[in-house]
Amino acid sequence: MSTPADTAALLARRARTLAPTYQLFYEQPLEIVRASGVWMYAADGRRYLDAYNNVPVVGHCHPQVVEALCRQARTLNTHTRYLAEQPLQLAEELLGTLLPESGRVIFTCTGSEANDLAVRISKAVTGGSGFIITEFAYHGATDLVAGLSPEDGNPLGPGVYTVAPPIGPQAAASFGARVRRCIERMQADGVRPAALLLDTIFSSEGVASDPRGFLADAVSAVRAAGGLFIADEVQPGFGRLGEAMWGFQRHGVTPDLITMGKPMGNGHPIAAVAGRADIFSEFAKGRRYFNTYGGNSVSCATALAVLAVIRSENLLENARRSGEYLRRGLCTLAERGGVIRDVRGAGLFIGVELGQNPASGLTGAAETRRVVNGLCRRGVLVGSTGRNGDVVKIRAPLTLEEQHADLLLEALAHTLRSAA
Amino acid sequence: MSTPADTAALLARRARTLAPTYQLFYEQPLEIVRASGVWMYAADGRRYLDAYNNVPVVGHCHPQVVEALCRQARTLNTHTRYLAEQPLQLAEELLGTLLPESGRVIFTCTGSEANDLAVRISKAVTGGSGFIITEFAYHGATDLVAGLSPEDGNPLGPGVYTVAPPIGPQAAASFGARVRRCIERMQADGVRPAALLLDTIFSSEGVASDPRGFLADAVSAVRAAGGLFIADEVQPGFGRLGEAMWGFQRHGVTPDLITMGKPMGNGHPIAAVAGRADIFSEFAKGRRYFNTYGGNSVSCATALAVLAVIRSENLLENARRSGEYLRRGLCTLAERGGVIRDVRGAGLFIGVELGQNPASGLTGAAETRRVVNGLCRRGVLVGSTGRNGDVVKIRAPLTLEEQHADLLLEALAHTLRSAA
Repeated sequence: MSTPADTAALLARRARTLAPTYQLFYEQPLEIVRASGVWMYAADGRRYLDAYNNVPVVGHCHPQVVEALCRQARTLNTHTRYLAEQPLQLAEELLGTLLPESGRVIFTCTGSEANDLAVRISKAVTGGSGFIITEFAYHGATDLVAGLSPEDGNPLGPGVYTVAPPIGPQAAASFGARVRRCIERMQADGVRPAALLLDTIFSSEGVASDPRGFLADAVSAVRAAGGLFIADEVQPGFGRLGEAMWGFQRHGVTPDLITMGKPMGNGHPIAAVAGRADIFSEFAKGRRYFNTYGGNSVSCATALAVLAVIRSENLLENARRSGEYLRRGLCTLAERGGVIRDVRGAGLFIGVELGQNPASGLTGAAETRRVVNGLCRRGVLVGSTGRNGDVVKIRAPLTLEEQHADLLLEALAHTLRSAA
Repeated sequence: MSTPADTAALLARRARTLAPTYQLFYEQPLEIVRASGVWMYAADGRRYLDAYNNVPVVGHCHPQVVEALCRQARTLNTHTRYLAEQPLQLAEELLGTLLPESGRVIFTCTGSEANDLAVRISKAVTGGSGFIITEFAYHGATDLVAGLSPEDGNPLGPGVYTVAPPIGPQAAASFGARVRRCIERMQADGVRPAALLLDTIFSSEGVASDPRGFLADAVSAVRAAGGLFIADEVQPGFGRLGEAMWGFQRHGVTPDLITMGKPMGNGHPIAAVAGRADIFSEFAKGRRYFNTYGGNSVSCATALAVLAVIRSENLLENARRSGEYLRRGLCTLAERGGVIRDVRGAGLFIGVELGQNPASGLTGAAETRRVVNGLCRRGVLVGSTGRNGDVVKIRAPLTLEEQHADLLLEALAHTLRSAA
């Protein structure tokens, strides 16, 4: 059992050992000691419904994934400069879900590395240096992609242009037009477009999902100007949106490059860039890329097990069904209370935009912070997102069931009605 | 049992699925299917002495490391936004070996990410933009550090200056002077120094180890000019050099920032930046850095087990003793045959520079390629390095014993004497 004294001791050790760049969730930080399925267990014995973490996509510590990891770790863990079955099988399975025609894969360890590499590739292959992202995008933490991640407070990198995000039906309908105007601005500055880089669920913007297909016009525009479309699937990928394995598939477009990460190893560090074979061939001319851990035996075996579980447990269908159930419940709450201004998302990636709450006297970001912390006290873990910080971010493991959604809805109803 | 047909099938699948940036070792690529300690086993049943891979620092598939990995993977794998014991204990243990005074740590997943972050930090904290590296350095594969990695054929990034490496006693003695002249050149260009970034064993340059202490003057020079010293310990760290846990310690200097990676998890993707607390505090002003997998529970538990095995099996001492034995044997071969021009290194990081071989009629890089492939055919895995490709790179797991060194020496003697 953890006591407040233990928490204080951990906080003090953390301050003495980790850099002050580290941040903790929640007003009362949680010490988590184990997790299983949709549940996380704190040191004080309390359990929490995990409706936040998108990494454990098939549920925390899934036995089949852990078993694959351990079996391979006992046998062999080495890199891609020897021949091996695992990275080939993984690349084949991924490409089968991703690209209708011939594609290729490069494995990395993190989504940041994948986006960094995709951006490098797009510069090398197009000869361009201009990038279009949305205003509050997040694409990772290397120097290059930090310049493409205004959400983190970073200054924009050279050649980076932003467009307003497609939040809401009107902004979604005019998204292509905004991208076209942005390309014109870029060209007027003498900058040649390299790529349009988009998180296909617009997570950091506060979640933009509908209507399906709104990306198509923007993708046509960048291609017409000689640039590539890079789909950042680090957040929406691996079935999270229920209707498809990848976010771009909801929009009827095929990206030139696709990056993926977070859920790929259910917590094990593996990520990848996939894309058109001709793009990789062009990039490979005179250039090497080697990632020591990227595509190692254990990472690949783990990722293969994640794909197998997504299939065998029919998790896309579950994400679709549970997500729909949850969104219906959220919409009912919205009609009842008036605090909820909008419910967006697909599958188990849901954004709940909050407005004024008479019960708490708070609004927007302050109300959202109160709700996130209030849900935590009530045993449900969620986060917040969006430029204004007024969107509750819900991203449960894809194994979430209706009974878990009910717990979340009930805790949210209580929190919205309460003053604290 | 693997047959040539299987190898051809794997090669064909590789060409159809992986990007052409991938490269394989050896003229006859090896399909490795399991590994244990210093041994790797191929699909055809043959075993190979691994005298190349620095990642499995405590030996392939070390049972204590695998057990720690599996125990934690079954229990919890989550990130640093909850409180947890593992990352704190790991940071404490690392800092105890690294910095005499107060230091801090940021965990990443790869050495590339660690170097990318250290370079970003040095720019932010010094306000400078100039970097000094050696001419054939390698520091990683993100966009930023690719510009600091001429070994990979990348063009130098903006503000990057190079100095000739400290290979040999004279070049080592004048290394500080070269760095001073480089700083003058930089300042004459109006560029303010941000950092001197060095792999403390100069792996890609062909291994530069002696005399101990030659780095001190260069480090003083960059500090006097307002820059930081970043020690890239991705290759020499974790006891590989036998005499100390970290390469910089052989030179009696204390870096401002230290990056580490490859052996940290014995194959599991974990890496870190450590350094002076005040530097991280300055960087943290207005900046966030979050790495989803960096410092996750499983990675930290694995790295803690690696540190425990290094201590309990006394692997520094073994690396020192086995390395010395191996270098003595190599020097004897050098005296006998004349093909070996130089033997450099410390502990189990050894570079063997080759010259003309009358038996093969080859010299330099061609002879080195022949020797590396000849050793592979004789069941011993090594690599090559150096700007001229004429250095055999030997980096066995630190558990290498004299009997294994004898096998290597015998195979090398045979190879040097043979025509093929």
